[in-house]
Amino acid sequence: MRHLISPMDLSVQETEELLLLAERIMDAPKDFSHLCDGKKLATLFFEPSTRTRLSFEAAMLELGGQVLGFSSADSSSAAKGETVSDTARVVSCYADIIAMRHPIEGAAAAAAAKATVPVINAGDGGHHHPTQTLTDLLTIHRWKGGLRNLTVGLCGDLKYGRTVHSLIKAMCRYEGVRFLLVSPPELRVPDYIREDLTAGSFPFQEVERLEDAMDQVDILYMTRVQRERFASEADYLRLKDSYILDTAKMKLAKEDMIVLHPLPRVNEIAPQVDNDPRARYFEQALCGKYVRMALILKLLGLARPSLPEAAAPQPQIIPSLSCGNPKCITAVQPGLPHLFHPVEGNAHLCRCAYCDHTCGGK
Amino acid sequence: MRHLISPMDLSVQETEELLLLAERIMDAPKDFSHLCDGKKLATLFFEPSTRTRLSFEAAMLELGGQVLGFSSADSSSAAKGETVSDTARVVSCYADIIAMRHPIEGAAAAAAAKATVPVINAGDGGHHHPTQTLTDLLTIHRWKGGLRNLTVGLCGDLKYGRTVHSLIKAMCRYEGVRFLLVSPPELRVPDYIREDLTAGSFPFQEVERLEDAMDQVDILYMTRVQRERFASEADYLRLKDSYILDTAKMKLAKEDMIVLHPLPRVNEIAPQVDNDPRARYFEQALCGKYVRMALILKLLGLARPSLPEAAAPQPQIIPSLSCGNPKCITAVQPGLPHLFHPVEGNAHLCRCAYCDHTCGGK
Amino acid sequence: MRHLISPMDLSVQETEELLLLAERIMDAPKDFSHLCDGKKLATLFFEPSTRTRLSFEAAMLELGGQVLGFSSADSSSAAKGETVSDTARVVSCYADIIAMRHPIEGAAAAAAAKATVPVINAGDGGHHHPTQTLTDLLTIHRWKGGLRNLTVGLCGDLKYGRTVHSLIKAMCRYEGVRFLLVSPPELRVPDYIREDLTAGSFPFQEVERLEDAMDQVDILYMTRVQRERFASEADYLRLKDSYILDTAKMKLAKEDMIVLHPLPRVNEIAPQVDNDPRARYFEQALCGKYVRMALILKLLGLARPSLPEAAAPQPQIIPSLSCGNPKCITAVQPGLPHLFHPVEGNAHLCRCAYCDHTCGGK
Repeated sequence: MRHLISPMDLSVQETEELLLLAERIMDAPKDFSHLCDGKKLATLFFEPSTRTRLSFEAAMLELGGQVLGFSSADSSSAAKGETVSDTARVVSCYADIIAMRHPIEGAAAAAAAKATVPVINAGDGGHHHPTQTLTDLLTIHRWKGGLRNLTVGLCGDLKYGRTVHSLIKAMCRYEGVRFLLVSPPELRVPDYIREDLTAGSFPFQEVERLEDAMDQVDILYMTRVQRERFASEADYLRLKDSYILDTAKMKLAKEDMIVLHPLPRVNEIAPQVDNDPRARYFEQALCGKYVRMALILKLLGLARPSLPEAAAPQPQIIPSLSCGNPKCITAVQPGLPHLFHPVEGNAHLCRCAYCDHTCGGK
Repeated sequence: MRHLISPMDLSVQETEELLLLAERIMDAPKDFSHLCDGKKLATLFFEPSTRTRLSFEAAMLELGGQVLGFSSADSSSAAKGETVSDTARVVSCYADIIAMRHPIEGAAAAAAAKATVPVINAGDGGHHHPTQTLTDLLTIHRWKGGLRNLTVGLCGDLKYGRTVHSLIKAMCRYEGVRFLLVSPPELRVPDYIREDLTAGSFPFQEVERLEDAMDQVDILYMTRVQRERFASEADYLRLKDSYILDTAKMKLAKEDMIVLHPLPRVNEIAPQVDNDPRARYFEQALCGKYVRMALILKLLGLARPSLPEAAAPQPQIIPSLSCGNPKCITAVQPGLPHLFHPVEGNAHLCRCAYCDHTCGGK
Repeated sequence: MRHLISPMDLSVQETEELLLLAERIMDAPKDFSHLCDGKKLATLFFEPSTRTRLSFEAAMLELGGQVLGFSSADSSSAAKGETVSDTARVVSCYADIIAMRHPIEGAAAAAAAKATVPVINAGDGGHHHPTQTLTDLLTIHRWKGGLRNLTVGLCGDLKYGRTVHSLIKAMCRYEGVRFLLVSPPELRVPDYIREDLTAGSFPFQEVERLEDAMDQVDILYMTRVQRERFASEADYLRLKDSYILDTAKMKLAKEDMIVLHPLPRVNEIAPQVDNDPRARYFEQALCGKYVRMALILKLLGLARPSLPEAAAPQPQIIPSLSCGNPKCITAVQPGLPHLFHPVEGNAHLCRCAYCDHTCGGK
């Protein structure tokens, strides 16, 4: 049985197969409308996320399946002190597949460890949100005809944006990809991402103003910049307009450029841009549904080629070592065994099997 | 594509066709039980309303369709600052039709402006609740055999009751209708309704005590009177019993009179009245389901005759004019264009395209 | 029409038929997967209970039916002051069967009195939770091959545990059953249960330490002991480990013993026990789904033999007598008629028809 906890759980080839399946569904949805007859998806949302939840539910319903679940922790057994592992084990009695969102890092991995049905991570705190990344990849694949040889502009808050980090990591698996990172100095990508890009010899450039990037990008991925994250009010006032995409800035862009946004937006894209055919963020929402349909089929073993069992080595308990990440599920639910993977190339470090935090100790 | 924002969006003929379709469904529900196979209704309830939501959901399920959505704003993206227009646009990717309830006036119109699927207004603050009005009309049509030549008694809080105002407006489109308005002086219908009735030469009478109206009405439409809305405690004590329908008052009524109530009731109808065959408020709840089934079929183009495109003129931006209603959606979501319709017969006034508030300024 | 309000509403024979039907469904679920096509279950949960609600919803979906409802009182009309009777009457227009959970004792009975479809009590405060009891019986029936000649160990908080009381009462209907009651002195079963056991000559023994019961029981029913319910901190510290089932204690038990738990658990069963084949609490959750499938079929008249109309005598109003239980639904919703059943063998007492509280007054 396979789960989807991180976007990197799928190999490049598996990702490609998934995207092709999603496009086949987009082109002929009726051929797929009964493949999940009699199947049930449980949407276990320990924190609200309407868009993601409705996208999963629409996906399952369009495959002929049914949906049950909850949309916030208030209506769940979590208040009674149950672990996510137990919840996932019990819900495995009621559903054929689980999509889970949880505010704590590593919660989806903890659920997968005990579930007897596939678990899809629909967001675990600041950690992973793999179906968003797959949605982004499908949108690019669909409207740019592939994932290679593209200049990807990412604009806004590149420091805290989980979505942005995952997309960079995912796009690095494709040849000829170049990044243009547009942000105020205080919201540049974290060092580890810059180091990864440098180490892998991926061409990238960091600029401060969106105007300076518009004419080069094939894809412009917009995100929100929150006022309170600027270093100073002066900086905010100087730069804020630069991070608002409007019709004037769109005039600078290539004719076949596409604009993406994970949504919801607040004011970082002017409503007038919606009418520009290059604005693809609503089609992106549609892609989110189709890629989830493909994913459900793959995880349930209802689409060829099947996903093979994950070859990942089993994580292990390391005597007297606990995960040091205070936001990790192991910090919140003490019953969980502390499990670790080795870190390649450094025998002294290991990586928490739930939240991926690197810990010393071997 | 047609939406339903106000009860008056449907012409008299369209309303008649809708009610006849609803009655056909009531008489042979199985003939309609697969017409929405593969279709999805999104119930976007930004404020809770169990009865209305369940009625919509039951309607869609009985047509063979499926349902997704949310039942309160807490579980929605609204908290993240998304406009209802964007929410409606995105949900159009997940569903074939939307039923939306929102606490702000004009929210449904704002949603319809961007949605790519039909939007049904399931209540927008104190503004419209068209499916309640259609429910009332179907109940009358079903149990009185038509909508003409009826004396309609309306009892309770006639000042603040949106339901009552809409029903009066809707019944005024039928010949031979007469109104008996039963309320304490401080809770009489608003002036604009009294003026409309006078202007249209619709016979009406205002009385203070329900006992004085019982023997004349063909339909008695009960609503709740909240204690805090009386002008004084003395008034409340003097009048409160007069607005409670009990078996004694039922003895004064015609044998073929029917009692309606939008529900939920608190104590304005004594439980003993439930056993009187003239009590039709629970059948009214049933009618609510059937009229919503008919409406869904009509808006999805699945029932003949189809609804033609709305002929209403496009609303326009009027330079430097904003809607003056502080409860209007344009006051809450600043990104929305301020759109207006002209007011017939007065070139100096216009009407907000969202909340219908009359504004000066031309 | 039959409802299920108390586990004792079903006769021994009806219970047996229900359990056999549930086992037939477990063995061949596909034979039952369309029996509820076109039917709808309403889950009216006035207080959250994820596990119970999802179990009901999964049950209805696996029968081919559909589900609507609400998962907490916040999203319901209760806030507007509607009685549960009216809610049940209206929801009868939208669904074919109702499962209701409510924090007030007797609420399910009040709903059943006005509903025009079968009502299943999914928990009414501290009063009844009959589908949990049926779940327990099915699990025992399935894994012990019957309900007779068994030694049932019940461990933990036996004073406040509604689940435990109902199970004892239910098991007393079968021959050769013996009870081992394991609890701290301050959390022993209430006197009325001890008296019932004595009066009926059911063999039972009360012990303080789980270790002393392990080798005798055929079934070990674990429940949680909350720290704040111990008489003193010293008592808690002395006894707490005794009520935690771990692998060491499992070594003392029979090879064919089974461990049950109503779930969610906190720490009263160590996670290592999950791997013991005698641990059956997750299969118990699965049984919960199947017994609810059987129950829905029985109450909808879709499974032979049908349940006959309940032969119970109609409850009556007794002039000037009100139920004395402050937690009874009649105390909270004043419109309800106060109805009573006679108490067998004592002409001076009667029993509230909603909450079963014994009241003087005849």
